[in-house]
Amino acid sequence: MGNTFGQLFRVTTFGESHGGGIGVVIDGCPPKISISKAEIQHELDRRRPGQSKITTQRKEEDECEILSGVFAGKTLGTPIAILVRNKDARPEDYSEIATKFRPSHADYTYEAKYGIRNWQGGGRASARETIGRVAAGAVAKKILSILYSELEIVAYVAQIHEIVAKINRSIVKAKDVERNIVRCPEGVAAKRMMSLIEHVREEGNSVGGVIECVIRGIAAGLGEPVFDKLDADLAKAMLSIPATKGFEIGSGFGATRMRGSEHNDPFEMRGGKIRTATNNSGGVQGGISNGEEIYFRVGFKPTATIAHEQKTVTASQEQTKLAARGRHDPCVLPRAVPIVEAMAAIVLCDHALRQKAIGLLG
Amino acid sequence: MGNTFGQLFRVTTFGESHGGGIGVVIDGCPPKISISKAEIQHELDRRRPGQSKITTQRKEEDECEILSGVFAGKTLGTPIAILVRNKDARPEDYSEIATKFRPSHADYTYEAKYGIRNWQGGGRASARETIGRVAAGAVAKKILSILYSELEIVAYVAQIHEIVAKINRSIVKAKDVERNIVRCPEGVAAKRMMSLIEHVREEGNSVGGVIECVIRGIAAGLGEPVFDKLDADLAKAMLSIPATKGFEIGSGFGATRMRGSEHNDPFEMRGGKIRTATNNSGGVQGGISNGEEIYFRVGFKPTATIAHEQKTVTASQEQTKLAARGRHDPCVLPRAVPIVEAMAAIVLCDHALRQKAIGLLG
Amino acid sequence: MGNTFGQLFRVTTFGESHGGGIGVVIDGCPPKISISKAEIQHELDRRRPGQSKITTQRKEEDECEILSGVFAGKTLGTPIAILVRNKDARPEDYSEIATKFRPSHADYTYEAKYGIRNWQGGGRASARETIGRVAAGAVAKKILSILYSELEIVAYVAQIHEIVAKINRSIVKAKDVERNIVRCPEGVAAKRMMSLIEHVREEGNSVGGVIECVIRGIAAGLGEPVFDKLDADLAKAMLSIPATKGFEIGSGFGATRMRGSEHNDPFEMRGGKIRTATNNSGGVQGGISNGEEIYFRVGFKPTATIAHEQKTVTASQEQTKLAARGRHDPCVLPRAVPIVEAMAAIVLCDHALRQKAIGLLG
Amino acid sequence: MGNTFGQLFRVTTFGESHGGGIGVVIDGCPPKISISKAEIQHELDRRRPGQSKITTQRKEEDECEILSGVFAGKTLGTPIAILVRNKDARPEDYSEIATKFRPSHADYTYEAKYGIRNWQGGGRASARETIGRVAAGAVAKKILSILYSELEIVAYVAQIHEIVAKINRSIVKAKDVERNIVRCPEGVAAKRMMSLIEHVREEGNSVGGVIECVIRGIAAGLGEPVFDKLDADLAKAMLSIPATKGFEIGSGFGATRMRGSEHNDPFEMRGGKIRTATNNSGGVQGGISNGEEIYFRVGFKPTATIAHEQKTVTASQEQTKLAARGRHDPCVLPRAVPIVEAMAAIVLCDHALRQKAIGLLG
Repeated sequence: MGNTFGQLFRVTTFGESHGGGIGVVIDGCPPKISISKAEIQHELDRRRPGQSKITTQRKEEDECEILSGVFAGKTLGTPIAILVRNKDARPEDYSEIATKFRPSHADYTYEAKYGIRNWQGGGRASARETIGRVAAGAVAKKILSILYSELEIVAYVAQIHEIVAKINRSIVKAKDVERNIVRCPEGVAAKRMMSLIEHVREEGNSVGGVIECVIRGIAAGLGEPVFDKLDADLAKAMLSIPATKGFEIGSGFGATRMRGSEHNDPFEMRGGKIRTATNNSGGVQGGISNGEEIYFRVGFKPTATIAHEQKTVTASQEQTKLAARGRHDPCVLPRAVPIVEAMAAIVLCDHALRQKAIGLLG
Repeated sequence: MGNTFGQLFRVTTFGESHGGGIGVVIDGCPPKISISKAEIQHELDRRRPGQSKITTQRKEEDECEILSGVFAGKTLGTPIAILVRNKDARPEDYSEIATKFRPSHADYTYEAKYGIRNWQGGGRASARETIGRVAAGAVAKKILSILYSELEIVAYVAQIHEIVAKINRSIVKAKDVERNIVRCPEGVAAKRMMSLIEHVREEGNSVGGVIECVIRGIAAGLGEPVFDKLDADLAKAMLSIPATKGFEIGSGFGATRMRGSEHNDPFEMRGGKIRTATNNSGGVQGGISNGEEIYFRVGFKPTATIAHEQKTVTASQEQTKLAARGRHDPCVLPRAVPIVEAMAAIVLCDHALRQKAIGLLG
Repeated sequence: MGNTFGQLFRVTTFGESHGGGIGVVIDGCPPKISISKAEIQHELDRRRPGQSKITTQRKEEDECEILSGVFAGKTLGTPIAILVRNKDARPEDYSEIATKFRPSHADYTYEAKYGIRNWQGGGRASARETIGRVAAGAVAKKILSILYSELEIVAYVAQIHEIVAKINRSIVKAKDVERNIVRCPEGVAAKRMMSLIEHVREEGNSVGGVIECVIRGIAAGLGEPVFDKLDADLAKAMLSIPATKGFEIGSGFGATRMRGSEHNDPFEMRGGKIRTATNNSGGVQGGISNGEEIYFRVGFKPTATIAHEQKTVTASQEQTKLAARGRHDPCVLPRAVPIVEAMAAIVLCDHALRQKAIGLLG
Repeated sequence: MGNTFGQLFRVTTFGESHGGGIGVVIDGCPPKISISKAEIQHELDRRRPGQSKITTQRKEEDECEILSGVFAGKTLGTPIAILVRNKDARPEDYSEIATKFRPSHADYTYEAKYGIRNWQGGGRASARETIGRVAAGAVAKKILSILYSELEIVAYVAQIHEIVAKINRSIVKAKDVERNIVRCPEGVAAKRMMSLIEHVREEGNSVGGVIECVIRGIAAGLGEPVFDKLDADLAKAMLSIPATKGFEIGSGFGATRMRGSEHNDPFEMRGGKIRTATNNSGGVQGGISNGEEIYFRVGFKPTATIAHEQKTVTASQEQTKLAARGRHDPCVLPRAVPIVEAMAAIVLCDHALRQKAIGLLG
């Protein structure tokens, strides 16, 4: 019962990695928004396996179908259901994991929770599930683009393993990110990251890293204290993405080593508007956007699927060993960039609608 | 519309720092749980201002009253309302902030969102709001103690500014935490932290740090993928606490610099049970608890209220300066320890009830 | 876990008939709405026991206190908590029902559900719980009055037992209803109803009846198909009021005996607007308001508490007899009129905010 | 944003009458429940158009596909998505209603709410939407059959226009209902109803009626006061079904003409259990089931689509006339019987899981 996200812009995903398909139902999308299959497909293609030499070589076309909620190119205000069929199933790739729990995967915990699991390719715990999120994110972006004409949501790879890119966060544009297959806007670091990922793949190993996301052009006033604070909802959204281990907004954990006098963001008048002189707050204060750039970082662990032989146990509680076969991402971050953007867009869209509901009355 | 947390164990808080009082309504508490005012008061006293020389010297007794939902010492299954009256109001302390936005507080964002704010002492954005959370956490702990007789939820201060305590996470007990007023279980670090906090107070400045929380004795199977993952809900819970900037579970951001072969937690049989040999996962895999210790870290920024003179603007958009007066915490972490525990307990309790709902059927 | 109503205008009530008090937390109220304690008290006084000779003679002042969410006479956008203390408790009146289940009350079902109950005066199942609803309804009415300047929500007693008032629904005004203590706008019927109620009280018996509610001046477009249809939410709201047994909107059960050609409401242009020539739909079509008068009827059973001796069983499963003592309403309808209005206002307010959220975008 | 029903057993439907298809996502279904496509199809076939000579002669096979959530015949605990493709589209049948508002349909209100509508065949307001409900109801019935082995949910046509069947509610079985195409268990009335429906069809007219539903074998204790009372949720569920105008439980509106001494249901010991001697309560007291038979009645209006020429207006606000063409149900009740059962099952299943969550703790 945890497959819906959002209060007003409500996203419900469904589907296992194997079976009829993966999809999403979006309830609460305002009517009369232009949206095309191509716009959704564009985002799905950024997430798609096999898109470059550093991602998994599984061939999944992930072509989407809009089942409902759109008529003559415009949203109806009714639920938008989007379906992507599953293909390229090779159940034989998975026969071993029918009985063995893959370390640091969700095989064991799904078994512990449900007493049953679809062991084909990870089932519901597969990152394939994020197709629904990315499709919903494409719709959220369209809505936001109407509400905030200057809005930019730009995520990028900021770090892979020990390689930390030098990035001026405030000037990165979406096109800078798409310039290379690792989705790191700094060219030198990007090259080193690509080499490392290819190297790690050859080792049969994997690496993690950090995705940073910056949001520009959002209004002040989004976020619903005290629990549905904008940063709290972003944190939940990000930690719900597979393989994430941490979230920090603005100064983040760096703030823990600062004094208040260094950390506080003084207010000033700039361009006729109330602005902060610095932005350690990361664009959110008291759980509400203050109109400055929102930025946050998401930590991803190395992919759990590795070719190395690992100790594990079987469902019948016997010690055994396991080595992954098949085609996997040695590093999920390049493909996770559109997922981070999608979840950020979903959170913002939900909060934008919530703010509309209470605005301009008194 | 963001003042309720939880799906089945639903916590709704209300109240500003000034006005009639602060409180909470807990809906969904199972019936026939023994709970006393003293148990709730015990947790509130750990959060209370003025409890030690390193916290604010404001005198707030924060005495709670159970208004409903408990009869003859037992819960009725009906909503439990708990009220703490506001006292010690000194509106004159706040007259300046009626017109000036305090840097890195929520004054400006509340104004931007609502077009109105209770400027007395921070209003709804005051940390005083967490009284309701702590009271609800006390109830959650009681329920959890029935469901999981071995359960321990222990939070403690792990770092203040640059002072990092050396703590063996797996052996810290609640009583170790309460041994000193800074709530750091390592004595040497605790002393240094106390000195620093006192020093910083004299400077009129503030510091942040890290609270770590460890949960032992929880069953495998809690967490509701794909959005209401246990770690995602913990992340949201923690980021909804005032002054927090980051959350990491298990290996956290450290995972970003590891290879999969180092990071994966091999399964093994131990004590007749399926266990992991290491615990980089932090007790959660695929968003579901695996029965190992759950541990996570929460980063707090330095208190925004400082005595230093700061640049800011007025509500009428004029540049001005502001220096805090009155009695404030130079470091919120010691008092935030019970808040972190409370929010963790609320998340676990909610997920425990959710798991009960679907269990043992098929 | 069923004590919250509404999606955006969220009303959570708490409290038993005995104990600290009864109250409500309203989350999602827009900011800057003027609201005074007097406005809330006015509605509570219409619901109050002892207000006239035909209601129960229990003396309950039911004075409310606004604990939070209002500052200087205006809503803050934060949760509005309202508390009414319990008084006039005579636990000795209830000692018998500690062990005996009152027929057609909730004593037995609460015991079956929760395994515990507050037997003093009905506990949570007491109609005293509706205090929270009426207080929230007063706030909802204020919001609605800003959104729809012509709005009128008028409920009245249309039938008591066999006495059916002759009422021209479309011209009844609030003041017509308050003209007599039975709250029936037709004077002749009202007198007969009062006589009947007094007679029934002397018999130690009780009667039921029908409350009709008419809503004028609401916009077209409220209601959220397919489940949160306006009529569906009104039905739930009404059936959640104690002692209700039925709900019908527009033509209601009368429609079951009509042909489509008689029942359909032809559209026509009238006063430059699209209107229906007839209004069998009751102002709602496809679950969405069409701008016509909304009207519905709510059936109330006779009060379960009667002075007659009745057969029943004890909690320890022995046959016994029971006759109510104390002061009770022989007919709940006059006091239920403001409750029906309050629940209608809450439903409309919630849907008005929901519609605001999606409006004016495409 | 109103397309989800239920708190723990959450049903989200999607789809317009024309477009890719109609479907449902069920979140919160417990794992390891056996469910087959055939079981779902069986219920869909009872709802299907063209199933008998008294229903619409549109040929819709309505074959379902389970897209997710079921593996090797058992539920996984993950979302169950079920899709029925749209076929037999004849957009030319609908060209006229692209511009003309059909009286007592939702054409005008959808336009007023959303500013756009899929005018092909009613779009989202088409009763075709109920396919998703019926599919979800089939799953709910399976879960309930495990929880309550004696459970029976039997709905039937009790009245068509002026023809009222004489039915002993307590002995009607499912097979009695399916014995004739009108789904009325009393043979003589059923024949008269069939004649009337055929006659009305020839007239180009339509009729309404009453569906009664009886639930046997449910435990005491289901229902969540004060808002999510079992009868309140049933009322909402029923009023959310297209063409419904009223709901009454137990004695219903009949109660309004009774005295308390007649209406109260005395408790007695019977068969070693606490029972009520009569059942005016309809199996629900204080919003909670008492273990007796639950029964309620739902009033349906005559189908709005009739062949008679009717006055109406166009979207551009001009007076015009309209007569339905094409193939329609002259009476929706026979096909609505499985829909009423499905919604009843969904409500009961949701409340059963909610009760499991809080049970057996204290």
